[in-house]
Amino acid sequence: MGAGHPLTLKWLGIDTYQEAVIYLHRDCEVCRSEGFEAQARVRVEAAGGQIVATLNVVDSDILAPCEAGLSVVAWRQLRVADGDTVRVSAEPPLDSLVALRGKIYGRRLDAAAMRAIVDDIAAGRYANIYLAAFVAACAGGRLDVDETVALTRAMVDAGQRLDWGRAPIADKHCVGGLPGNRTTPIVVAIATAAGLTMPKTSSRAITSPAGTADTMETMAPVELDLPAIRRVVEREGGCVVWGGAVGLSPADDMLIRVERPLGLDSEGQLVASVLSKKVAAGATHALIDIPVGPTAKVRSPQAAALLMTLLEHVAATLGLSTRIVLSDGAQPVGRGVGPALEARDVLAVLRREAGAPADLAERALMLSGALLEFCGAAAEGTGIATARGLLDSGRAWRKFLAIADAQGGFREPPRAAHVRVVDAPCAGRVGAIDNRLVSRIAKLAGAPRDAAAGLELFVKVGDRVDAGAPLYALHAESPGELDYAFDYVAAHPETVVVLPA
Amino acid sequence: MGAGHPLTLKWLGIDTYQEAVIYLHRDCEVCRSEGFEAQARVRVEAAGGQIVATLNVVDSDILAPCEAGLSVVAWRQLRVADGDTVRVSAEPPLDSLVALRGKIYGRRLDAAAMRAIVDDIAAGRYANIYLAAFVAACAGGRLDVDETVALTRAMVDAGQRLDWGRAPIADKHCVGGLPGNRTTPIVVAIATAAGLTMPKTSSRAITSPAGTADTMETMAPVELDLPAIRRVVEREGGCVVWGGAVGLSPADDMLIRVERPLGLDSEGQLVASVLSKKVAAGATHALIDIPVGPTAKVRSPQAAALLMTLLEHVAATLGLSTRIVLSDGAQPVGRGVGPALEARDVLAVLRREAGAPADLAERALMLSGALLEFCGAAAEGTGIATARGLLDSGRAWRKFLAIADAQGGFREPPRAAHVRVVDAPCAGRVGAIDNRLVSRIAKLAGAPRDAAAGLELFVKVGDRVDAGAPLYALHAESPGELDYAFDYVAAHPETVVVLPA
Repeated sequence: MGAGHPLTLKWLGIDTYQEAVIYLHRDCEVCRSEGFEAQARVRVEAAGGQIVATLNVVDSDILAPCEAGLSVVAWRQLRVADGDTVRVSAEPPLDSLVALRGKIYGRRLDAAAMRAIVDDIAAGRYANIYLAAFVAACAGGRLDVDETVALTRAMVDAGQRLDWGRAPIADKHCVGGLPGNRTTPIVVAIATAAGLTMPKTSSRAITSPAGTADTMETMAPVELDLPAIRRVVEREGGCVVWGGAVGLSPADDMLIRVERPLGLDSEGQLVASVLSKKVAAGATHALIDIPVGPTAKVRSPQAAALLMTLLEHVAATLGLSTRIVLSDGAQPVGRGVGPALEARDVLAVLRREAGAPADLAERALMLSGALLEFCGAAAEGTGIATARGLLDSGRAWRKFLAIADAQGGFREPPRAAHVRVVDAPCAGRVGAIDNRLVSRIAKLAGAPRDAAAGLELFVKVGDRVDAGAPLYALHAESPGELDYAFDYVAAHPETVVVLPA
Repeated sequence: MGAGHPLTLKWLGIDTYQEAVIYLHRDCEVCRSEGFEAQARVRVEAAGGQIVATLNVVDSDILAPCEAGLSVVAWRQLRVADGDTVRVSAEPPLDSLVALRGKIYGRRLDAAAMRAIVDDIAAGRYANIYLAAFVAACAGGRLDVDETVALTRAMVDAGQRLDWGRAPIADKHCVGGLPGNRTTPIVVAIATAAGLTMPKTSSRAITSPAGTADTMETMAPVELDLPAIRRVVEREGGCVVWGGAVGLSPADDMLIRVERPLGLDSEGQLVASVLSKKVAAGATHALIDIPVGPTAKVRSPQAAALLMTLLEHVAATLGLSTRIVLSDGAQPVGRGVGPALEARDVLAVLRREAGAPADLAERALMLSGALLEFCGAAAEGTGIATARGLLDSGRAWRKFLAIADAQGGFREPPRAAHVRVVDAPCAGRVGAIDNRLVSRIAKLAGAPRDAAAGLELFVKVGDRVDAGAPLYALHAESPGELDYAFDYVAAHPETVVVLPA
């Protein structure tokens, strides 16, 4: 059967988000001889490698029968140029789909089956519908503890694994769901100022308006390759970079491409995602923050306890020490929600500005203190005081600037072109702020794609406000997005509830 | 916000299988003003209607910034032509996705939530990954009885519903998984020859090498619209047409587009799919055949009993009378597997040819007899004899020809260009035939896309064979597919097991 005649690549520039797609003319020889139909999964071989892609059959003159087009992601994966040649052949059905179907039908996945699925995912052999089916089949408590361990281990093994040649290697993670809770850059600055090694690899937003990598990117470059990361960490003891550029858990990066549009982030996947990236990043000590609140990701102390147990068990099985902190998840943290707006809060805390958000500072100090104690850089009971000393003295700020410089240079976060304020409908007291609605509005305004977009909160729960006083502002880069977010605001007055005085 | 400036349509002819995709240039005004990104779901409005499509952003000269392209299915849905204009606007997030996420997380769907999901699916508002997640979340026994009833009812209500103004209206269905088990055209011929009304709407293959509609299409046109179906049924009392052309259960047709590549056909979906189409087709009496065997879809009497209970309960709730027959699913039925090869078997039985497959004839008579008794066209205990009389006298054959004529004209099924025989490796007795492998091989040979492709079995379980005697033949339209199927045959000698004598 072989790989057929070579086809000449033509740049079509079609961005399919992250699915590898190949475009072939209906009359191309390989389509006819192999009997390919639209949506077939085919193997595409170029000089520099091979991928599996979904076939879209083209019946127009944008391609000649001897030409092939690729989606942008496939073009990048194969590192090809206009006029290069590729060969296309049938991709045998994936063996791991049998295991996937078994899981969908309710059967347990053993370690070997889980590994087969994860390896195929990491290699890009799963079409989006397979990824979506896998994610849905594993959500809702349908991964047991052993399956979660197997998933985590397979995710680690499918990617790069860093070794720093020393211990402890500190890490932290927040389970999320709390807009504006951007403590990581502050914690890294304090921990490394205290002498800990903390090579922090962060993610971009999945379903939230900003990930730590998105926020850090408004202050310094984050897409560093591994040698660059090593140089930064050797020099400064820590970094805040995007993990996706290093391929620490490529299967997780693939799953995110369906979790994001589906708005899913389920327990077993969450544990595997978090812990696989910590283990792959070479961490020995991971501090995990779980905010608990009625509109946070984790809504009750019972749910938090279950998640803690699972995180601790899986981490221990993989040889990672964890300390878990439950924190207040009742309302957003700081003022800004969105990459640049959150960066402004981070900078205000590090620079000890008068108007810096106190809640963000206190959370960062609490977490830094716990991490210093956990990693032996402060005696039990003295961590917070040590952290506060490092922040108040300006040492944490200087360390942050040094890290940003080492990553490629510090910069001030951008400001949005359009701002619109939402006022209090009446005088009274702020009764509640809905985390989920705040996140949604920030996203409708353009975050995280537009780094400067998002939402700026002027009030906290319990604050007294006058009628017409500003509650929050929308920041957007286009009038369309500002209008769109504002329409949503108008339809959802419960975002910030003002109880009449 | 509005729908932005009009864009001029350009035919790109990209076949994305069945997902509606719109292609817009990166610099088009609506992309910039709305901040659209690749994979966004957008509303596309044309003169004749509107659809929801997935956005692919294009960065090349195949489109100008003022132009838009559509995938083939979107082009058809909107009934547009080159040069027509469309308007594109943001599609608000679907409310039913909240219910979908709830189901994925393990919550029950009430009737209203199920209806919201099914209505969005039927209207084409679900991207493939949402469909895949829904199917996976409902598989493996995760739909309870009430949810299955709600799903079935919502599927019926989302589409056309036929009313024949009389009773009984007979229908039959086989739960499938048994290659070559193509009794429907024979049963319709016998039942209508007996005076019953049987307007049979059939489906195309989902995961099998042939659906009844695929097989019938090799003998007569099956894509009839509703007025044409009514004319056929008024004249002849019955038909065998493709249900998809009539929109009886459009949500089910959408789900099939992910069930097929996923190879999924789970219990709750199966029951809802089967019964929604029967109810929508106006049936009052449905005979359901469940073949049971180790490599059939239903593998044990226990599984069959569970499925029977669910089918009967849901059907009764929707006011449909059912009679369920369990049949032997140990091995394929007839000789042919694949649309045209199965049609040859059907014709051999109807024409009472000497070499007609006896097992297919006996099954068709058994089912026809049960249906005649169930619908009151024969006294209990006399159905099979009545059916045999109609077949042996040639009345069923003449009725079949009349139906085929009324549908647009009878034709002989095609023959494949390439045939290759697989021989017995040794002398002995045929010990087993694996239904699943037989189906897979027929599909690798090109069925059901190539109507003439598939597999022709020369032996039954228990037959004695000499070394080198032909066991079965592969039929394909291209040498590549023949080779591909043969490679699989060589790797799977257990397809037809010959026990040495």
